[in-house]
Amino acid sequence: MNALFAPAIALISAAEAHADPVTLVVLHLALILVAAKIGGEAATRVGQPAVLGELLAGVALGNVGFFGAGGLEAMKTDPALDMLSRLGVLVLLFEVGLESTVREMLRVGPSALLVAVLGVAAPFALGWGVGVLLVPAAGPYVHAFLGAALSATSVGITARVLQDLGRSQTPEARIILGAAVIDDVLGLVILAVVSGVIAAAGQGGALSAWSVGAIVGKATLFLAGSLAIGVALSPPVFRLGARLRTRGVLLAMGLAFCFFLSWLAGAVGLAPIVGAFAAGLILEDVHYREFVDRGEHGLEELVKPIGAFLVPIFFVLMGMRTDLRSFGDPKVLGLAAALTLAAILGKQLCAAGVLGPGLDRLTVGIGMVPRGEVGLIFASIGLSLQLEGRPLLAPATYSAIVMVVLVTTLVTPPALRWSLGRRLARHH
Amino acid sequence: MNALFAPAIALISAAEAHADPVTLVVLHLALILVAAKIGGEAATRVGQPAVLGELLAGVALGNVGFFGAGGLEAMKTDPALDMLSRLGVLVLLFEVGLESTVREMLRVGPSALLVAVLGVAAPFALGWGVGVLLVPAAGPYVHAFLGAALSATSVGITARVLQDLGRSQTPEARIILGAAVIDDVLGLVILAVVSGVIAAAGQGGALSAWSVGAIVGKATLFLAGSLAIGVALSPPVFRLGARLRTRGVLLAMGLAFCFFLSWLAGAVGLAPIVGAFAAGLILEDVHYREFVDRGEHGLEELVKPIGAFLVPIFFVLMGMRTDLRSFGDPKVLGLAAALTLAAILGKQLCAAGVLGPGLDRLTVGIGMVPRGEVGLIFASIGLSLQLEGRPLLAPATYSAIVMVVLVTTLVTPPALRWSLGRRLARHH
Repeated sequence: MNALFAPAIALISAAEAHADPVTLVVLHLALILVAAKIGGEAATRVGQPAVLGELLAGVALGNVGFFGAGGLEAMKTDPALDMLSRLGVLVLLFEVGLESTVREMLRVGPSALLVAVLGVAAPFALGWGVGVLLVPAAGPYVHAFLGAALSATSVGITARVLQDLGRSQTPEARIILGAAVIDDVLGLVILAVVSGVIAAAGQGGALSAWSVGAIVGKATLFLAGSLAIGVALSPPVFRLGARLRTRGVLLAMGLAFCFFLSWLAGAVGLAPIVGAFAAGLILEDVHYREFVDRGEHGLEELVKPIGAFLVPIFFVLMGMRTDLRSFGDPKVLGLAAALTLAAILGKQLCAAGVLGPGLDRLTVGIGMVPRGEVGLIFASIGLSLQLEGRPLLAPATYSAIVMVVLVTTLVTPPALRWSLGRRLARHH
Repeated sequence: MNALFAPAIALISAAEAHADPVTLVVLHLALILVAAKIGGEAATRVGQPAVLGELLAGVALGNVGFFGAGGLEAMKTDPALDMLSRLGVLVLLFEVGLESTVREMLRVGPSALLVAVLGVAAPFALGWGVGVLLVPAAGPYVHAFLGAALSATSVGITARVLQDLGRSQTPEARIILGAAVIDDVLGLVILAVVSGVIAAAGQGGALSAWSVGAIVGKATLFLAGSLAIGVALSPPVFRLGARLRTRGVLLAMGLAFCFFLSWLAGAVGLAPIVGAFAAGLILEDVHYREFVDRGEHGLEELVKPIGAFLVPIFFVLMGMRTDLRSFGDPKVLGLAAALTLAAILGKQLCAAGVLGPGLDRLTVGIGMVPRGEVGLIFASIGLSLQLEGRPLLAPATYSAIVMVVLVTTLVTPPALRWSLGRRLARHH
């Protein structure tokens, strides 16, 4: 129906031939879903988490041009697919949040805070050091930027691996997820400071300490406020919703709550996924018991198919955007190898922040390793920052950061699986 | 994670402040979901289908500016919401298709074909007549265009009403849905001919009869071919899929199939929803019995939450795009009233095409009434067509077509509910 007559118009004006934008999007979606399942199946068969297969399927799809075939370049930048993948990662973090409660998160709070601070400080120092050693001529701004890029944490990969392996409800998982949320705030501050200093140096201005404080304040206020208000308000609101007669109220309320907090997080300057995760934490089974009591599915059950549709889009697309050609340059490879080592070691140090006995520190350290698209955002900001009329980052430095992101992202699923398996083997 | 550092960038460059496009989209989504449920609940409480409430909630949201409040204009044209709503109507038709089988549809085939032909011919003639009587000076091209605009059928509303009332599996429902699919093909041909003739008259060219034949041929080939090949191939393909060990295979395969046929329909020049509906018809419970046997949910059960998320976006947005101000002009109102009458009466005549005893002809006639966004597409094409250097349609004529769409769309849910209820009352 929509643009039903597009082809008829095309008889008249070729420019309007693609009047229904959904046509190409659904072909791409079909391709992504099939690739995700083939990749996921292959990974599962060799004992790896399905998400690794989805990433690699994306890498294959995104580099068919590299292998000599036609290429699917348009998919990498298609705004509709990009939007669906962003919704996908929100739904993923909402799902993961639903598996825990605020109370359980607060229990691991001190550990998570310490892990987050160490997990930002150690890679920052190591990244700076690698810069000083390997690209001394680039100057202190680039060195600081390399440190900042390594301090980021991308929680999506780890959240999916923990979900794939059915381990999202362990204390280690909560520490990683809590630390990743705090990391979002710290990363924000670091990036604000580093790029503010660079921009100020380039333009002769000065960075306001007040604006840095404002970011930290808003972020803290959001987290404490949304959790407190959400925990207090959601039971009566959902009880009210349970009185409605129209169908699908529980899912609509749950999604609306997730989307609202995602927006709120974005509005105060946090990553939207922080809001989605907080929404999941706040909602508990007891809030919607009345729906389940009358025979409806629970919220987790209802969100699962939406996640099964949207989440693979995120990971396949992330794989597709990986450019294998950057592996070809030996100059890039040296810097990338050193930075990757710094990135992985730096996050291992943060495991020292895990408080309490009997917890698996290695798993926490590995879970913090992936930089994912957060690192890519850092890299692209580095390209856009100007210093003395030139881009801050040289192309080789940019490629090296992209490779760090790639390697840390691809290495985490098997490493996390191994470390969790090792732990299980010891216990049984 | 995504654009985590957007606000930090904003410290430097205000132009990049909204770096994460998902932030505003999720706020709009939360608003749409809440509005849809409030509207749906209100409609359900007064005994109407929920979709009427969703439409009216959209009308209210879209016209708050008209009522003096701030206005949410950006939502009406947001490409992300538009894309999600297009995916929503695909999922809706897929869901509706899943409730029937190819065999059941073929059984009502002759009726559906006759209803479709009459349902295009009668409104076309009546619309032409109204044009000759009320806007004689506009000339034969405008008269033909009015007829063409009235011949369209929008199946989305009727499909939702039938679903809301649990009546999608009746013979009447199948006749309406089958006829609507055939109408898509016929409407395509009519629009191609009418706008081809107008464009040819405007530019001194000539319309090729061959190109009209090609549209009809491709459409027929798609329908017959996809149904035949789909019915033959889907059992072995789904049996193969059932052997995979990774999770979510059934949903991914079902959606990929739906999206692939939607693309194929669009590629041969049909509406993508025709493909989605065909995909739903082809897939039957027996194809995925192996998944259900091992404890997974059936496909209908899995698609339902995705529909519950995406489908309301389509209807709320359709309501939002309704401009209440067009009701203010008495000159527009006269033409609109006559055209609306022609539109409704014309579709009642098509009920004569229902073959066989004991079928509810009134319900079929009412089910064909809504013009929905198909009529809007016609209207906008009318604005874009040029005749002697001026737009084919005068603004008042355009507004009148928009009002026909609005009235036929809003009138159908309660009318259909009444006609189905009347029938039930007679039977019991």
